[in-house]
Amino acid sequence: MSNEGKPEVGEKTEVGIGLVGYGFIGRVHTLGYMNISMYYRGLGWKPRLAAVCSRSETNRREAVGEAGYAWSCADFRELVAREDVDVVDCCTPNDTHLDIALAALEAGKHVYCEKPLARNVDEARQMAEAAREAGRRAGVKTQVACIYRFIPAVMRAKQLIDEGALGRIFHFRAAYLHSGYVDPMRPVSWRLSKAQGGAGAIYDLGAHILDLMYYLLGDYVEVMASLETFIKERPSQADRSVMVPVDVDDFALIQARMENGAIGIIEVSRVATGANDELRFEIHGSGGALAFNLMDPNWLWFYDDTRPGSPIGGLKGYTKIETIQKFPEPGGFPGPKFAVGWIRFHFASEYEFLASIQEGRQTTGATFEDGLRIHEVMDAAMRSAEEREWVKVNHRN
Amino acid sequence: MSNEGKPEVGEKTEVGIGLVGYGFIGRVHTLGYMNISMYYRGLGWKPRLAAVCSRSETNRREAVGEAGYAWSCADFRELVAREDVDVVDCCTPNDTHLDIALAALEAGKHVYCEKPLARNVDEARQMAEAAREAGRRAGVKTQVACIYRFIPAVMRAKQLIDEGALGRIFHFRAAYLHSGYVDPMRPVSWRLSKAQGGAGAIYDLGAHILDLMYYLLGDYVEVMASLETFIKERPSQADRSVMVPVDVDDFALIQARMENGAIGIIEVSRVATGANDELRFEIHGSGGALAFNLMDPNWLWFYDDTRPGSPIGGLKGYTKIETIQKFPEPGGFPGPKFAVGWIRFHFASEYEFLASIQEGRQTTGATFEDGLRIHEVMDAAMRSAEEREWVKVNHRN
Amino acid sequence: MSNEGKPEVGEKTEVGIGLVGYGFIGRVHTLGYMNISMYYRGLGWKPRLAAVCSRSETNRREAVGEAGYAWSCADFRELVAREDVDVVDCCTPNDTHLDIALAALEAGKHVYCEKPLARNVDEARQMAEAAREAGRRAGVKTQVACIYRFIPAVMRAKQLIDEGALGRIFHFRAAYLHSGYVDPMRPVSWRLSKAQGGAGAIYDLGAHILDLMYYLLGDYVEVMASLETFIKERPSQADRSVMVPVDVDDFALIQARMENGAIGIIEVSRVATGANDELRFEIHGSGGALAFNLMDPNWLWFYDDTRPGSPIGGLKGYTKIETIQKFPEPGGFPGPKFAVGWIRFHFASEYEFLASIQEGRQTTGATFEDGLRIHEVMDAAMRSAEEREWVKVNHRN
Amino acid sequence: MSNEGKPEVGEKTEVGIGLVGYGFIGRVHTLGYMNISMYYRGLGWKPRLAAVCSRSETNRREAVGEAGYAWSCADFRELVAREDVDVVDCCTPNDTHLDIALAALEAGKHVYCEKPLARNVDEARQMAEAAREAGRRAGVKTQVACIYRFIPAVMRAKQLIDEGALGRIFHFRAAYLHSGYVDPMRPVSWRLSKAQGGAGAIYDLGAHILDLMYYLLGDYVEVMASLETFIKERPSQADRSVMVPVDVDDFALIQARMENGAIGIIEVSRVATGANDELRFEIHGSGGALAFNLMDPNWLWFYDDTRPGSPIGGLKGYTKIETIQKFPEPGGFPGPKFAVGWIRFHFASEYEFLASIQEGRQTTGATFEDGLRIHEVMDAAMRSAEEREWVKVNHRN
Repeated sequence: MSNEGKPEVGEKTEVGIGLVGYGFIGRVHTLGYMNISMYYRGLGWKPRLAAVCSRSETNRREAVGEAGYAWSCADFRELVAREDVDVVDCCTPNDTHLDIALAALEAGKHVYCEKPLARNVDEARQMAEAAREAGRRAGVKTQVACIYRFIPAVMRAKQLIDEGALGRIFHFRAAYLHSGYVDPMRPVSWRLSKAQGGAGAIYDLGAHILDLMYYLLGDYVEVMASLETFIKERPSQADRSVMVPVDVDDFALIQARMENGAIGIIEVSRVATGANDELRFEIHGSGGALAFNLMDPNWLWFYDDTRPGSPIGGLKGYTKIETIQKFPEPGGFPGPKFAVGWIRFHFASEYEFLASIQEGRQTTGATFEDGLRIHEVMDAAMRSAEEREWVKVNHRN
Repeated sequence: MSNEGKPEVGEKTEVGIGLVGYGFIGRVHTLGYMNISMYYRGLGWKPRLAAVCSRSETNRREAVGEAGYAWSCADFRELVAREDVDVVDCCTPNDTHLDIALAALEAGKHVYCEKPLARNVDEARQMAEAAREAGRRAGVKTQVACIYRFIPAVMRAKQLIDEGALGRIFHFRAAYLHSGYVDPMRPVSWRLSKAQGGAGAIYDLGAHILDLMYYLLGDYVEVMASLETFIKERPSQADRSVMVPVDVDDFALIQARMENGAIGIIEVSRVATGANDELRFEIHGSGGALAFNLMDPNWLWFYDDTRPGSPIGGLKGYTKIETIQKFPEPGGFPGPKFAVGWIRFHFASEYEFLASIQEGRQTTGATFEDGLRIHEVMDAAMRSAEEREWVKVNHRN
Repeated sequence: MSNEGKPEVGEKTEVGIGLVGYGFIGRVHTLGYMNISMYYRGLGWKPRLAAVCSRSETNRREAVGEAGYAWSCADFRELVAREDVDVVDCCTPNDTHLDIALAALEAGKHVYCEKPLARNVDEARQMAEAAREAGRRAGVKTQVACIYRFIPAVMRAKQLIDEGALGRIFHFRAAYLHSGYVDPMRPVSWRLSKAQGGAGAIYDLGAHILDLMYYLLGDYVEVMASLETFIKERPSQADRSVMVPVDVDDFALIQARMENGAIGIIEVSRVATGANDELRFEIHGSGGALAFNLMDPNWLWFYDDTRPGSPIGGLKGYTKIETIQKFPEPGGFPGPKFAVGWIRFHFASEYEFLASIQEGRQTTGATFEDGLRIHEVMDAAMRSAEEREWVKVNHRN
Repeated sequence: MSNEGKPEVGEKTEVGIGLVGYGFIGRVHTLGYMNISMYYRGLGWKPRLAAVCSRSETNRREAVGEAGYAWSCADFRELVAREDVDVVDCCTPNDTHLDIALAALEAGKHVYCEKPLARNVDEARQMAEAAREAGRRAGVKTQVACIYRFIPAVMRAKQLIDEGALGRIFHFRAAYLHSGYVDPMRPVSWRLSKAQGGAGAIYDLGAHILDLMYYLLGDYVEVMASLETFIKERPSQADRSVMVPVDVDDFALIQARMENGAIGIIEVSRVATGANDELRFEIHGSGGALAFNLMDPNWLWFYDDTRPGSPIGGLKGYTKIETIQKFPEPGGFPGPKFAVGWIRFHFASEYEFLASIQEGRQTTGATFEDGLRIHEVMDAAMRSAEEREWVKVNHRN
């Protein structure tokens, strides 16, 4: 049945999902598994909600009741040990990724993990090494939930860049802006704790936008960053009348030089008043330019500098390419013209991971290797901010 | 168990769904039922995919295989007869709504029906009457899938209008624009057939935008319309080398006078090149204005004319209210800040219908009465176009 | 020197301007004459502010003092009689256009006249006939200040339509929306008086947008209109404590069928809360679509339906063509990339009129013939609103 | 008449303008002087085009012919010496500003100078010192043509920030993006020469955007910059078949820390494909946010975080404040609602300078002191880029 611990999923009609952590993001991932067979039609396989793990009894009960998980437990080691679990999906706080992933990889499970990959670059390195090893040993696949690679507009951007439509890339600006922490009375959570989260906005939001630029533009060479903690103390979650210091950043500004010669600025903020879920980028090259904003996700803006400029403007100008829900087949549902929403990108990311397992191929998503690389960039940025100087992004080995 | 044929759903933990028609829109509705317990959390009940009906064996097989319907059949009468079906959802072409709905209502089932309600105003009237009768007899509820009432931006528009934020409403413009039929070689389908569809764009798109203006602004008094069939013949679906005449409109322009004294223009098109799913409206009143566009669904634009105008512009200007995914509780998932997509509105519409059943109250969605009223408007518009004059919208009786 | 009364402007280095009416719009026209030699460089001629006429002594004094008119008078007949006046520019209320224009044409002067051409279609017909006669007799040129023909974005739209880039035109929507009369305490002025203005929004704003659609799409066949006076009484200008009835429209909605088979809606409003100077149009054809908004005047939006649609959106989508200040030579100043403003279109319109005189050719602006045609459309629309039926736009003879 | 060399302009009805350099920007400035009395009505004074200086005979001839300068010369010293020149306006390349300004200040003339103030910080310091001295000695006024301070949207932004509407300012991003040098075959001009221009994009575009952030947010503390010359050689202007090296930047990225505790990124580019004249900024504070884009200059976007957030979005969202042409009185012409264009900001800047002279008060524009400060910032940025480290912006003395 399983060979060296790895389920031969390709031959099964169901892929058993074991989810660890049924908080907000666990529910989001669960929705993906519930919906994949509807959005990606005609597959020969289907995810099955085999097992869920949570330390919270309430969450376990809800996972079974509302989502329909077949089995639940409080200790991830039990989940990892189950025969009917093919994929372990890690939706817990950053400080727990390492243990869960190592156990799952050890058990020959494919692992899908929330971003950032780990609590720090060392843990990320251990996870990437374990993934490499499990891949060699048992064909195990890994993926980080860098879901924005799967926005149709981003996929189209990738195509255009790869085709050379932008020519030589000069410079870019990218940002991931949230306003969720503008309120100074929002209490400390694991996302505001270095011990649990590892870092603040640079991890939470940076892991996404740094991966996206990496995906679109290639590797980083060096960074020069500033980190800020604008709101330096917040109420304790345990006792809201007590203020406790915040030991992670709420803002980061990263100048980055890329291997392709481009230079750009990448910005993340949790205190960007007026922003909701504002991930955006603009890229300028010798042949054209691209722009995207996640709050208006139906369009990729493309400036083709080879279009004629006359008479009176000719055809020069940004084209608002209607990428909308133009997911590649078999992901055509619900159709190309209906406004796309955020959660759809999770479905596409999960589908790609499961499909890569089914088809025994490399995912186009971020692997644990990619996740490690982004940790190397974030680590370099944090050191740069500390030392106030440019820092090379160490090459992986 | 059931009393006079009506299931006492409020006491059950599951609501049995019987879906008729598993084409595109049937799949969309099914997704709603699959997802409701995740998006609307903490409910004491849950939809159950009890039965599906389709004349296509393939569709039946897929409905069971990909969506998980428990049972399937080819004849809607069998479905309607089942004890475990509480709600009949009608997702078939317009010419079949009448029979299915009458049978379901007769059997005391709640009925959720795709728009337009029927193939013509007479059929709509029969359906509304049957719904009224079944409501009286057995507390049966009905709803038309006018899903755009459930966009947070639209719900906010309704609040602002009802609060008087627009003052006296002067005039408005509204449109629902598609480009799907610009290609003259797109073959004839039931949507291009008067016998099956009843009419063209005015039914398909008009049913939505006319309901929306009705919901927001109140009742219609009279209309003056133009209908066009720009592309007068198309390939037959059976044999694409044969061109057949198109007997329904692909464009309609409707001047409308409302009971509240407002006048406006409502436009629908299937040949609006450049449009994807472009439902939009702008409303101007003595105290302010509103604007919305479905292709940018995260925002309601509100102009508050009471804001100060100086110095240098003061605070006057349209506010892009961030309605995004701010669904009222318990619909808070996946959270207020993530870009909303089209399919979410279906979920909200279905939830409201099922909740109104659970709670034994009137839906805020469009009832069959409302669906009839919209048919009366469409009927008046079609007669107006034919006779080239203003036509009163007959009052329901 | 002058031959049959008409100055041979082509041989002069200066074109003598005689302006009648130095209110707001008279000042705007004056700015054009002052600036033409700077914006249109290298011309062999130059406008000269020869004479100004106003019944207001203050206005006359200002015209001389701030603008530098060489001479002033209170009676337009004196101005028209002057040898050094080559062009008479009529900037007075609508009810005075007829007399001024007839006198000027009689004297062999070229006439540039504010829109609408006259107070009603009969007066417009007299003016067009006089213009025709003076043209034959003395090569006299006329132009109506339909300045929006000269927006680079509009000029580009005209090119694209003429090249067939839109294919067969299906339908369009156009509007000219102002909010200036939302305040019910704004007192009555000549623009709110039938006796002086002839009509309300349909003349003031309609003259522009109806001309624009005529320019872009060709002639009108028939119209079906609604006119409203939402605010039915206003303070008298003489005594603001006295309310007087308003006898002109503040809103009009015009369904129009065009000779080219297109159908569209044209809307004008003076009570469109939230609008500033919102002239806009959208045109859909079998091959593409166009959109423009005067409040964002740097861009013409063009949808080219022949662009490839795949992969993932291909290159399909509206292009925001950067027309900005791309005025044709010699109007290149101040350069193509700087944001264009409203007043620039006046300069372009005046330049075109003077250049057409210099070069002895037809203007691309609206002639008095065109102005008459627009009056015929407005007249048909007003009758249509009165009779509540479609009205043919009589053909000129 | 004149007292200590300084004309008592306040008592004169005309202000004599002596313009040095009649290239593109000289023409733009000239338009301002020609138009001020029309846009700013009811003034007791008026600019007079007294004298123009250019080394080009063609330009001199045109300045007299098309603009109407009363007198011309080839040597700025002659112009500076004239009694009828009250204001010297310096529109020449950067390397000539010092000599012209010193001579003019020495002669007690008010000086209006194009940006950047000088070719380098040392020259700027000499100019600021001479201005200070001439101010003390003879009440002489100076201003740098930082025209974007005079956009109504920017003036409104300044008011809102000064009123505290943004609360504590956290971070900002600003950019001034041009694409004019994307074409590698565009030949070298003085703007691409260190000897004449002093620097590239950082001077040409940076002088504007750095001043704007200084105006809005206050003083700079330190900067960390990167400069790039993406296109390293270009055709010589003398012989286009010869490529010559480019010794100035075409791109700069500046992280800046401000005295008020804010941190931000300021970006300038001459190779930002797709940009025309894209000056923009976004500022986030604890109480709100602001955004502006010069290519859509009619609006200031303001997010007021104190607005209510519920129900369903409440009134939270960016308001597109309609600043349009809402210039403070007496600059109300041509009226508040008509789309504003770029050149209007020059008029406003020149008016403010002349009004400050008339009224013997401080200008709200950038003085030579401010111009020096911006040179100190640019100088620090260039050193930072060279040394790859943070550089303090030296305090003026």
